Amino acid sequence: MDWLLSSLPLAAAEGAAEILTTLFVVLLAAKIGEELFRRLGQPGVVGMIVAGIVLGPSLSGLIEMADVLDAFAELGVVFLLFWVGLETRVSELRQVGATALKIGVLGFLIPLAAGVALGFALGEGAATAVFIGAALVATSVGITSAVLIDLGLVDTPAARAILGAAIIDDILALLLLSVAEGAAGGGGVDVAEIALVATMTAAFLAFFAFFGTRLARNRPHLLEVPRFPNAPLLIAVMICLGMAALAAQIGLAAIIGAFLAGMILAETADQHPLEEKIEPLYELFPPFFFVVVGLQVDLGALASGGAIGLLVLVTAIALISKYGGAWLGARKLGSTEAHFIGLGMVPRGEVGIIVAEIGLVAGAFDDELFAVIVVMSVLTTVLAPPLLRRTGSRLQMGPELTT
Amino acid sequence: MDWLLSSLPLAAAEGAAEILTTLFVVLLAAKIGEELFRRLGQPGVVGMIVAGIVLGPSLSGLIEMADVLDAFAELGVVFLLFWVGLETRVSELRQVGATALKIGVLGFLIPLAAGVALGFALGEGAATAVFIGAALVATSVGITSAVLIDLGLVDTPAARAILGAAIIDDILALLLLSVAEGAAGGGGVDVAEIALVATMTAAFLAFFAFFGTRLARNRPHLLEVPRFPNAPLLIAVMICLGMAALAAQIGLAAIIGAFLAGMILAETADQHPLEEKIEPLYELFPPFFFVVVGLQVDLGALASGGAIGLLVLVTAIALISKYGGAWLGARKLGSTEAHFIGLGMVPRGEVGIIVAEIGLVAGAFDDELFAVIVVMSVLTTVLAPPLLRRTGSRLQMGPELTT
Repeated sequence: MDWLLSSLPLAAAEGAAEILTTLFVVLLAAKIGEELFRRLGQPGVVGMIVAGIVLGPSLSGLIEMADVLDAFAELGVVFLLFWVGLETRVSELRQVGATALKIGVLGFLIPLAAGVALGFALGEGAATAVFIGAALVATSVGITSAVLIDLGLVDTPAARAILGAAIIDDILALLLLSVAEGAAGGGGVDVAEIALVATMTAAFLAFFAFFGTRLARNRPHLLEVPRFPNAPLLIAVMICLGMAALAAQIGLAAIIGAFLAGMILAETADQHPLEEKIEPLYELFPPFFFVVVGLQVDLGALASGGAIGLLVLVTAIALISKYGGAWLGARKLGSTEAHFIGLGMVPRGEVGIIVAEIGLVAGAFDDELFAVIVVMSVLTTVLAPPLLRRTGSRLQMGPELTT
Repeated sequence: MDWLLSSLPLAAAEGAAEILTTLFVVLLAAKIGEELFRRLGQPGVVGMIVAGIVLGPSLSGLIEMADVLDAFAELGVVFLLFWVGLETRVSELRQVGATALKIGVLGFLIPLAAGVALGFALGEGAATAVFIGAALVATSVGITSAVLIDLGLVDTPAARAILGAAIIDDILALLLLSVAEGAAGGGGVDVAEIALVATMTAAFLAFFAFFGTRLARNRPHLLEVPRFPNAPLLIAVMICLGMAALAAQIGLAAIIGAFLAGMILAETADQHPLEEKIEPLYELFPPFFFVVVGLQVDLGALASGGAIGLLVLVTAIALISKYGGAWLGARKLGSTEAHFIGLGMVPRGEVGIIVAEIGLVAGAFDDELFAVIVVMSVLTTVLAPPLLRRTGSRLQMGPELTT
């Protein structure tokens, strides 16, 4: 249709045509990939990531990354975690708090140590080694959440332990990145700044997780406005966007804000069954997040033989160190649970890709190492869900779901 | 919070923070504006446009236009017209077809003649005069649709006549713009291209309006996919996006594709009550469209005394010529209906702004004339809804709603 496009009279319509076509093609590809994988007995999430790889530079090159896709992907993961938050009660999260902390900390320290050791073994400098460690630390709570929803397991203690641990991971990874960036820039580590981010993070979490949920519990009519029948949905969406924006503004991941917003509103769930109202947003936006993860993969950058060897090595270390760390933290919950939690922490997803991008900009990664980290992030993301699915079915038959 | 933002370690998080904050602020301002105006007895749409003016360069300068806002605005008007299409049956539209054609053609010719005459009277060249005519011709079906929904009048013959006429208007304005652009570029008028666009438009409309609705009527289970419970919503959204993209690709307005998509799916409405499922999208996106209309206004560009005089003149001619043309076409429907339809065709909205932008790029408009056309578009948009509302309440008491 190129001859047609270039002959159009309306400049503004061209922009609209491009945006709408991109959104349509991405959504269609995501849903085809999701359905195809589901019918093959595989998690739909993986199908959507594969759809992104097919649309991306490695294969068809049909879709190029654009600001609009980035925004939709961001909203996608925000609404995804908001949805997960809606299914989570703060009291239930507190029950698994100590275990989640252990899983989060061990799932942070072991991959970090493995990554730094790998960096030094490869002959890299300290900054690059720390960045490799940071990339191995990252956990994509988005990917795992989607699989948990898919399996109908969001509401299990194991799932809550994964969520809590992933949030702790995210915070620790954030602080680590500040250190790594300081080291890569040669400016040293700014302890005051790190302390500031840590303090604000703690304040944000404490304030919203405890006072926010208490407020919502005591005021179940929070979402109602006289003469404004659609208030619950709109106010819920605005609380979600607002808390996600605030979390991002203070340097925390936006999804943590969205998750907390969902958890707060879960306390008013008896009054307002929000899930059903939010569903169209949950159906529409998250596919963009998964496709965009796939779009970042450029297999061409792995052309050299050495890159493939490095990729296999990094991916193996990423899998083993994260699984091992999380398993160690969770082993008291029982072997099926510990196995499930270990697998659930494996996907690096978009968080690994973000670390790779920061490492590239900071000069710690060259193009090859960047491509290796990105593809490792996608590989861990694609490998974990089928395993999770298998273990999940055993978990479903476990005693904690029959109560 | 600037000191905070610039101290953040995560480049990616900064992007997310900016996007989420912009979306949050725009949505919040839109809803505050809408509620405020509603409580003052004014249409909510006007409140959202005013919110855009307040956020924009004339006043606070809080929000700058960005690609993401553009995309949300585009989706906003697409979902708005999709919603209107869902409320429209093709058989009902056919009943008002002849009248709509008369209203559309007269509502095109009279403003065009008035605009061209004004251009020549101002001493402008032919290209500029034709562009002024094109700007006066444009009808924003988005704005009027929102007011009709607000008043609960979408389902009346008068509303359907407005919709049909506005679509005819849009098509005629599109062809006119091709002529105007050719003339402004000095390349003359490419008759073959105009014939091509006209043919494709006719084919698109005929194909979808008749075969599409017949298909949907004969296959009421169109939206169902085995083992895929959310299929109706998703397939509906994809038909909407796909047809909007296709319409934009062939040089037609995207909203016409969205409207037709809605009308086709209205035929399956007995099987799938889509309105309720689409509602969150309808609540979330259209506010961006209205705020973005307001954001385009830069009152500073009207600083000179002459500009204000010109603005008053252009706005008066825009109001009178459109109202008069549409009224003439509708007068056989009765005086209340003709008055309502005349008012309903008045808002120029985003269509006037798009014409102004094309005129600026083509060199037909200078900065002052550009600003005048933009502010005229917003003024007609803001003035019509309160009048529509007053007439609408008389229409509601009319006989055609008691049947």
